[in-house]
Amino acid sequence: MAVRADLNLSLDGVAVTADQTPENPFGEDWGRLVAPYVGTRTFRERVLHEGSGLGTTGVDDRYAQGYFEGVGAEIMGAGMFGLHTFPDNPDWRGWWGEEPPFGFTVLVLTHAARPPIEFPNGTRFEFRTAAPEEALEEARRLAGDGDIRIGGGASVVRDFLRAGLIDRLHVALTPIVLGRGSRLWDDLHLLEDGYDVSSELAESGVIHVTFTR
Amino acid sequence: MAVRADLNLSLDGVAVTADQTPENPFGEDWGRLVAPYVGTRTFRERVLHEGSGLGTTGVDDRYAQGYFEGVGAEIMGAGMFGLHTFPDNPDWRGWWGEEPPFGFTVLVLTHAARPPIEFPNGTRFEFRTAAPEEALEEARRLAGDGDIRIGGGASVVRDFLRAGLIDRLHVALTPIVLGRGSRLWDDLHLLEDGYDVSSELAESGVIHVTFTR
Repeated sequence: MAVRADLNLSLDGVAVTADQTPENPFGEDWGRLVAPYVGTRTFRERVLHEGSGLGTTGVDDRYAQGYFEGVGAEIMGAGMFGLHTFPDNPDWRGWWGEEPPFGFTVLVLTHAARPPIEFPNGTRFEFRTAAPEEALEEARRLAGDGDIRIGGGASVVRDFLRAGLIDRLHVALTPIVLGRGSRLWDDLHLLEDGYDVSSELAESGVIHVTFTR
Repeated sequence: MAVRADLNLSLDGVAVTADQTPENPFGEDWGRLVAPYVGTRTFRERVLHEGSGLGTTGVDDRYAQGYFEGVGAEIMGAGMFGLHTFPDNPDWRGWWGEEPPFGFTVLVLTHAARPPIEFPNGTRFEFRTAAPEEALEEARRLAGDGDIRIGGGASVVRDFLRAGLIDRLHVALTPIVLGRGSRLWDDLHLLEDGYDVSSELAESGVIHVTFTR
């Protein structure tokens, strides 16, 4: 029943990029940031549904597998779900198509009430206006014996870190500098206190850093 | 004749800490940031003059040795020399005592003219009001066949990076979060273009990242 978070960060700590346009809703920076993760076998199977056997199988893929294992519920911010990008579309159902890679309930933190959205694969988005502690209490009930994942974006993970609620934080540092966007580390002076910190290098050049309580 | 820079950074990219007080002129954060480097055999011999045989001898020490090898001249900012900490002391001779670990000429970039300072071991501080290109031209003449080191702090190294003047940048990422101070990476979007980037983990937990042109 651990509370976990995983983020892709640039060397300068950017987790949410800032060069999106209507023509390119993810932006160029996002592609650069997540390229090693998106290239893994796990991502290509579980998120892109490309079938089996495609993608990298090294260290990055091991972390990608870990990301999907043992989760019973998730909490994410409105931005990660897409509500900041498409604020006026009441029919928005998330970025993930009709097979969202969850299979459990995801609590989306937002100030605007929306009806829940359910998918045949067991994914269910519910919308909540709640403080971190309160959302976590509900997620614990939903997760049963599973872990709770704090999906992102940066500001949501930071809020949970500042509240001392995260047991394991894994960041995958892509060795690029973005220089713009939302940074994870701001206002987290001495975050490492109370955690063991370990690192591992991937074949791709990504540096995986894990904070474990 | 490469132009090189080496910096210790926190995970959030802080190179110059910000909690100095008159009682503690380095601050607590500085000690946390540089502890692995200060613990190396090379630092203890060459900077602290503690004699030989003390200190760590692993990966961190290998980078510390590289820091001192082959340098013919250095450029540093006024802050790194100490002029921001002791602006009103005309007799200030730097942080390093009477055996500064240079042995060559160091150009200190400052707007206030000062007479040069010379030490018996060949270290000579000269004070210049100069743009990066101009300072580098003088440093090249001084360095002979040696490399030119851009010593720091963060803003000086950033200026040289933005001007495209650095051939090799090595950052030692200490796995701590400082959340305050001067960050290296700001305004360096896509710095990695034109560089090979490689990483190595030290026994201490420090992540050494090197950009090589």
